[in-house]
Amino acid sequence: MKTFRVGIMGATGYTGSELVRLLSAHPQINIAYITSESHAGESFGDVHPAFASATPLTLQSVESIFENPITVDCVFLALPHGVSMDYVKRLQTLANPPRMIDFSGDFRLSSPEVYTQWYHKPHGYRAGFEQAVYGLPELFRSRIADAKLVANPGCFPTATLLALAPLMDSKRTPQWQLSENFCIVDAKTGVTGAGVRATSTTHFANVHDNFKAYGLKSHRHTIEIQEILEQFQPQAPTVQFTPHLLPVDRGIFATLYLRLKNPERLKTTPGELQKHYKNHYRHHPFVQVCNEPPTLKAVRGSNHCHLYVDWDERTETLLVISALDNLVKGAAGQAIQNMNLMLGLPEDMGLQQQPLSP
Amino acid sequence: MKTFRVGIMGATGYTGSELVRLLSAHPQINIAYITSESHAGESFGDVHPAFASATPLTLQSVESIFENPITVDCVFLALPHGVSMDYVKRLQTLANPPRMIDFSGDFRLSSPEVYTQWYHKPHGYRAGFEQAVYGLPELFRSRIADAKLVANPGCFPTATLLALAPLMDSKRTPQWQLSENFCIVDAKTGVTGAGVRATSTTHFANVHDNFKAYGLKSHRHTIEIQEILEQFQPQAPTVQFTPHLLPVDRGIFATLYLRLKNPERLKTTPGELQKHYKNHYRHHPFVQVCNEPPTLKAVRGSNHCHLYVDWDERTETLLVISALDNLVKGAAGQAIQNMNLMLGLPEDMGLQQQPLSP
Amino acid sequence: MKTFRVGIMGATGYTGSELVRLLSAHPQINIAYITSESHAGESFGDVHPAFASATPLTLQSVESIFENPITVDCVFLALPHGVSMDYVKRLQTLANPPRMIDFSGDFRLSSPEVYTQWYHKPHGYRAGFEQAVYGLPELFRSRIADAKLVANPGCFPTATLLALAPLMDSKRTPQWQLSENFCIVDAKTGVTGAGVRATSTTHFANVHDNFKAYGLKSHRHTIEIQEILEQFQPQAPTVQFTPHLLPVDRGIFATLYLRLKNPERLKTTPGELQKHYKNHYRHHPFVQVCNEPPTLKAVRGSNHCHLYVDWDERTETLLVISALDNLVKGAAGQAIQNMNLMLGLPEDMGLQQQPLSP
Amino acid sequence: MKTFRVGIMGATGYTGSELVRLLSAHPQINIAYITSESHAGESFGDVHPAFASATPLTLQSVESIFENPITVDCVFLALPHGVSMDYVKRLQTLANPPRMIDFSGDFRLSSPEVYTQWYHKPHGYRAGFEQAVYGLPELFRSRIADAKLVANPGCFPTATLLALAPLMDSKRTPQWQLSENFCIVDAKTGVTGAGVRATSTTHFANVHDNFKAYGLKSHRHTIEIQEILEQFQPQAPTVQFTPHLLPVDRGIFATLYLRLKNPERLKTTPGELQKHYKNHYRHHPFVQVCNEPPTLKAVRGSNHCHLYVDWDERTETLLVISALDNLVKGAAGQAIQNMNLMLGLPEDMGLQQQPLSP
Repeated sequence: MKTFRVGIMGATGYTGSELVRLLSAHPQINIAYITSESHAGESFGDVHPAFASATPLTLQSVESIFENPITVDCVFLALPHGVSMDYVKRLQTLANPPRMIDFSGDFRLSSPEVYTQWYHKPHGYRAGFEQAVYGLPELFRSRIADAKLVANPGCFPTATLLALAPLMDSKRTPQWQLSENFCIVDAKTGVTGAGVRATSTTHFANVHDNFKAYGLKSHRHTIEIQEILEQFQPQAPTVQFTPHLLPVDRGIFATLYLRLKNPERLKTTPGELQKHYKNHYRHHPFVQVCNEPPTLKAVRGSNHCHLYVDWDERTETLLVISALDNLVKGAAGQAIQNMNLMLGLPEDMGLQQQPLSP
Repeated sequence: MKTFRVGIMGATGYTGSELVRLLSAHPQINIAYITSESHAGESFGDVHPAFASATPLTLQSVESIFENPITVDCVFLALPHGVSMDYVKRLQTLANPPRMIDFSGDFRLSSPEVYTQWYHKPHGYRAGFEQAVYGLPELFRSRIADAKLVANPGCFPTATLLALAPLMDSKRTPQWQLSENFCIVDAKTGVTGAGVRATSTTHFANVHDNFKAYGLKSHRHTIEIQEILEQFQPQAPTVQFTPHLLPVDRGIFATLYLRLKNPERLKTTPGELQKHYKNHYRHHPFVQVCNEPPTLKAVRGSNHCHLYVDWDERTETLLVISALDNLVKGAAGQAIQNMNLMLGLPEDMGLQQQPLSP
Repeated sequence: MKTFRVGIMGATGYTGSELVRLLSAHPQINIAYITSESHAGESFGDVHPAFASATPLTLQSVESIFENPITVDCVFLALPHGVSMDYVKRLQTLANPPRMIDFSGDFRLSSPEVYTQWYHKPHGYRAGFEQAVYGLPELFRSRIADAKLVANPGCFPTATLLALAPLMDSKRTPQWQLSENFCIVDAKTGVTGAGVRATSTTHFANVHDNFKAYGLKSHRHTIEIQEILEQFQPQAPTVQFTPHLLPVDRGIFATLYLRLKNPERLKTTPGELQKHYKNHYRHHPFVQVCNEPPTLKAVRGSNHCHLYVDWDERTETLLVISALDNLVKGAAGQAIQNMNLMLGLPEDMGLQQQPLSP
Repeated sequence: MKTFRVGIMGATGYTGSELVRLLSAHPQINIAYITSESHAGESFGDVHPAFASATPLTLQSVESIFENPITVDCVFLALPHGVSMDYVKRLQTLANPPRMIDFSGDFRLSSPEVYTQWYHKPHGYRAGFEQAVYGLPELFRSRIADAKLVANPGCFPTATLLALAPLMDSKRTPQWQLSENFCIVDAKTGVTGAGVRATSTTHFANVHDNFKAYGLKSHRHTIEIQEILEQFQPQAPTVQFTPHLLPVDRGIFATLYLRLKNPERLKTTPGELQKHYKNHYRHHPFVQVCNEPPTLKAVRGSNHCHLYVDWDERTETLLVISALDNLVKGAAGQAIQNMNLMLGLPEDMGLQQQPLSP
């Protein structure tokens, strides 16, 4: 059985360490190197005692990778936005440039201009935008397989776009097209989404017993959702996206309020909608259209996304609910799903673990 | 200093015991009796060791109150809906009928017909509807002062109506009137809202690390919000209300998405909106219009409601956020606020305690 | 690759469903049947939506297994104590009696008399005591391999005995023998230890933000620890065991206070103690002797037990800390470890999953 | 009704803000100033939106208090250890030196030498040790009333010493004297004990779902307990103190394992012990000796300490359990209790609030 070699840049944040955790159970992957600036020279097991048995590797500085290049098939970049773009550029200049999967927001949008508008900083690698494929396999499976550079989606956009996908294909299923009237995404996330750095926002006493909205009107995932939506439906609704912070460590839960261009058919056959969702996702191993509203805990630790769709006759509004684990399907698991596609492996290899529930 | 005597029917559920907790610090109230069917004959302190010092009273069965009537100025009925209506009726037949504050949903709606439609059971006391005043002091302060029977609002309607109130007075402030287009209330509650009874829904392992939506399209608080809204604005939007269960014990957090009939003025002077909210609530001691989005913990254990209002120019949508403690401003604290008004006491007497934060 | 067939009696409690979760990833096991009295006739995925993909099986009543026997290599009995003994007895009368692993306390003690003293009920199957092997592989690996009936240990005894084992072998390492003076086990558990049934004890509002001791002086795991300890060290200390309830769903954490018969050597070479522990466990894949005090989360969802040992010179007392996941190493994972030994499979097969941390 | 004026140095940490919260409800106290170095110039309500209504004061730098002295009756010093000693010294040089209550560990021990041994830094104000009274009112009520300087006890020592007090008076109740054999204090605390600063230790993802021991063998509260114990019982046992971190924001829970010098009487009349505890605390308003093991939540937000005592005949060991809120009886509430004594006010004035449970 052939094994592939991968590198992980930024292996001590939540996404990077989750990658190590998950890849240690992947039957055809060997981790060739892991980097960390703050912990260079330490063994991974010393930094993350919980994963002491996952890898014997020692963390290196990212520069050492370029000084003594280690040939790998695929590199995961779990680096901050603004930093990632530089390493993507440099990796492409190597003799044997690896396939790349970038977790940052640097290549998810359509252009440096849009990037600067929402991230409030210049972009240093315009060429990357042309190469980058948006790494949501349920939308772009075949393009991902061929991609040199995959922009791994944000956790909120993953949950939201999987909820929207069956309604946004204006060509193949125009009968289910979204009304331009509104698209409200009331989203909730666990704390790991805020990163491993200790801040007032992540202090236990400020999260526990608490709940709050943040990033009102301006969260960067808004434009990420909006642009993908408009790729499929040119006259798309304007996305209203409001994230909230849940007192849990993992999880994304999105409640969407939508309307259809042509709601008439739902008035007579509301059950058609769920059937359409189930049919849409019948060949996607990680998306499950549920008969009951989903719960966050039922996907905890797994690469699953649970969807639920309902039609409220009284208000003529669609409710769509989406739940996933932000560190798995919302980050590291999805990246491995992308890697599997890029390396010609079965899409779900190494990702079949059941959720930890309870 | 005159003291008033009160009785509490149903003192061992969360609302009833919270009443005892709060009233034990009220300078002009004596608790004359407390009832419980499941714990009749036990002392309150044995049932609730945490409140052993709050009252020396022994719990009685509710029937014993009618067998040997104890004269009180006010009775709180913290009984299940469907049960409460019978005792309201019987209390009114006493020689000296007390003022009554009912926590159930039995007298919050406009008629027995609407009640039956949403509660799926017949109603046995039509006369109560004419007498009952909806006990939201910020809307009905003067009518509450004169009421014989107050229907204490639901926790979600309290949070929602306080968020909507400055926008729904079509007579006095028509310039801020809501558009009929939509009124989306994405609400989140702590577990005590589900009651003291142990069920699969309240099992720790099913709540902790979890989050879910429930009561989609059909929660009874929907009609409660809708009917009050329509009292003020005849052509009101249809309310879309979706509650979710948070892994916290206390708290209501509501995120509202609204539009205005005439949004033009906000395009030029968006700051006017917050000013209007602050002005609207300037004489209401328990509603604070915040400069930053509120947090659930900042109101924990207090009778405060924190509001925040914002205008999203990109989507032409209003965001209004409301946070309160479901057991205090959402139940027992609001009832004491109503009682104060009914007994001619200062509205905030006994209710000035600060939140427990952190 | 040969596959074995197993049955699970009682598959809807926490232990039973954790077995399904874990076994669904075991490469050489097929689940042949699962039983549940309360959910007979329902599919496992309907009862546990989180595990919908783990097995397509439908739950049967346990009686149906005897009416139409299904031949299996091993049966897991995740039934209440007092009930389990009857099915152990009946399974042994089958034409091809399967190997059995019993999760109840019915066969963990030395005799029906001791059982009755601590469980306050008679015992109906004395013969079982002779056959049963106590299923702690780190103590009884070879006997387990040959056993027909394994009594899977309690979660607290597993954590405690793994902490004590290097100190209790009075024959092989008499220099490390425990003093008879005292053996204090201050233990803490997550809520799943209290079972899936909704009770006042498991109500979220009674667990969250809370902590308490329970079962003082009388918890049944006390005698389980005591009897195993005395098998190895006849003049063993009397075990003081105090469990507490943590506001977490999973986990056992035990803090032990011990003294040695001969502490003199520690006064000069305290580091010897940790070396002894590491040496003792060097061939046991699931026990890790840590250099720093362990944390509960670092073992969450895994079959690992993390130990830490320290010598307090000031008090001449040993501190030993033990952490594991009550549903994995404390129940279902340990049972699979036992099953692997019984079926001649590698001890860690299907159990290598990393913890879910964070 | 006379009012007293107080100042709070360090009003933005957890203890300082809890003081503001509690004092805002004290009928005879006016807060004259509050200080904060990191938030000087900001209003208290802006830093703590939850307490916006507690005080209209603006935070000052501590130096400004000495530049323009504000006369107060009592100063609370909620400053780090090592810093506090300097301000105690300087306050005593003022024309009208106020009474002082110090929250740090600077004056809790017996001498600069012991301080240096456990705090690993020199001490700059030896004279303070002679003046300081250890502020545990249940032990030193009359001395506190006369003190110029009160060293407010640590949270763990408060819980522990209240549990030990009835057993350590070798003069008045020699029959209940502790054995020298051992004194094991297995203690658990909420996260606010670690302070308001964001660190890896207080990161939500490291606390939630977690539990760990820390400060093994060396926690500074060990010597604080030991020295007070030895004041009462010269040949006291050596204290073994092990703190653990609970995933809750507030609370101290201590489980003590003790033996008596003369356990014989307990063998015949074990009930005597609880009677002795109840009798010992009959005149202390905040200590309640419970009939059932206490829970952390039953004291949450209150100044109560709940104790439970039990005798295990099998092991001849005493179990004593102690629960309190670390920010109230373990810090700010106890300080107000001390202040009341110092100012000649009723001991429980302003401290009668019920716990927030649930």
